[in-house]
Amino acid sequence: MIGSGNVATHMALALYKAGLNITAVFSRNISNAEYLASKVEAKATDRLKDIPNDADLYLVSVKDSAVAAVAKNLELNENIVAHTAGAISQDVLKPASKNYGVFYPLQTFSKNKELNFNEIPLCIEAANRQTEDHLMDLAKKISGRVYSINEEQRQILHVAAVFVSNFTNYMFHLAEDITSHHKIDPEILRPLIRETVHKLQHMSAYHAQTGPAARGDENTMNKHLELLRQFPELKEVYKMMSEAIMKRH
Amino acid sequence: MIGSGNVATHMALALYKAGLNITAVFSRNISNAEYLASKVEAKATDRLKDIPNDADLYLVSVKDSAVAAVAKNLELNENIVAHTAGAISQDVLKPASKNYGVFYPLQTFSKNKELNFNEIPLCIEAANRQTEDHLMDLAKKISGRVYSINEEQRQILHVAAVFVSNFTNYMFHLAEDITSHHKIDPEILRPLIRETVHKLQHMSAYHAQTGPAARGDENTMNKHLELLRQFPELKEVYKMMSEAIMKRH
Repeated sequence: MIGSGNVATHMALALYKAGLNITAVFSRNISNAEYLASKVEAKATDRLKDIPNDADLYLVSVKDSAVAAVAKNLELNENIVAHTAGAISQDVLKPASKNYGVFYPLQTFSKNKELNFNEIPLCIEAANRQTEDHLMDLAKKISGRVYSINEEQRQILHVAAVFVSNFTNYMFHLAEDITSHHKIDPEILRPLIRETVHKLQHMSAYHAQTGPAARGDENTMNKHLELLRQFPELKEVYKMMSEAIMKRH
Repeated sequence: MIGSGNVATHMALALYKAGLNITAVFSRNISNAEYLASKVEAKATDRLKDIPNDADLYLVSVKDSAVAAVAKNLELNENIVAHTAGAISQDVLKPASKNYGVFYPLQTFSKNKELNFNEIPLCIEAANRQTEDHLMDLAKKISGRVYSINEEQRQILHVAAVFVSNFTNYMFHLAEDITSHHKIDPEILRPLIRETVHKLQHMSAYHAQTGPAARGDENTMNKHLELLRQFPELKEVYKMMSEAIMKRH
């Protein structure tokens, strides 16, 4: 396992729990490497030269900007190497081995927040059939949702994930802001949030759209903008989102 | 029950199931009134003059723009009247009775989508103590989450609901659009959406924020904008959201 961040940690633990043997954990920061290594009975190192040369798979789970540099410094012969990034081409791994691919978990990972890995979609891509088969087999050992996808699809999923997770979370953040400011516990919004998501099991988001913008209720929208007058950030988001929703509906 | 739309229907059914006696259902459209009335063993009418004058409560659950007009046409003596709207002042009910208030369910309602009413926050407000007590008691019969709130808080909650439900759903809609366009089943995003919401049980949305904008990753953001070049609507939302998140983080 090359890396010791959120994704590397969750991934290493999932593989370890599935009975896989993780031989070593690399991190530029040796204490991070040691911490993760201790949890998965692996050897820790902060030097790429020192990682074992006989592993079946080298998983590169470092920040996007470091993947290519790591690949250039790996000497793998023909061992399989895969990265876990959503937005990076698999081809950056070419310098390390001819058997390369992608092992991308479509999920949001936080430190200290356990996840049921079996529910996490794993998106697999590879430079050749043999590598793909190997990565698919491995993926199926830790997840019930394994997909073979191509690079364009993976990159589109990475953008889509920004919309449904990062931007959505920002909406929650803005709502927390304004409720807290008015001495309301944001907890009261939780059932509504849950139902908004739950609805998607029964209808498309297009058909699930409700609210003043979707029904063109200018009266309510103007009232809302008036209520938001002291919150320029929320006001701007409100305007833009409402205009976009009105256009669609 | 005055009204026969989504909120009126869910509310009437919840009250009926809790053992309350619904005497009549009013709707301008008699067949809508009859349909709901048949489900709750009530009498149906399309004339306000014909509703019984001895009910303990008159619940006005019509569209926002019609609440005031209904109130002016009700002759209630001192019976309690309450509306179910998030954005309308309770005072519009004054012409109907001196005992008026609000019975606002903070939830998104869709036709043919059953809800566990016990989980729905009910926000109560009233012109006087006696009316508030009556509405609180009733609310507790159908929900485990009953709140006494004032008008300003209710209106803020109504705006916050637009952010966490309508705008969030629009993010899901945009993600469905772009994934479908690339022949990817949007279903693959479901576990990520669930985890995004689930995280909020463990941390504030501010602390849960991840993604390229939160970490100032210009490289990834530029790649995403490039991927979105054929989708001006998504591109505009992406830009604006990312800028706002960057400012905050």
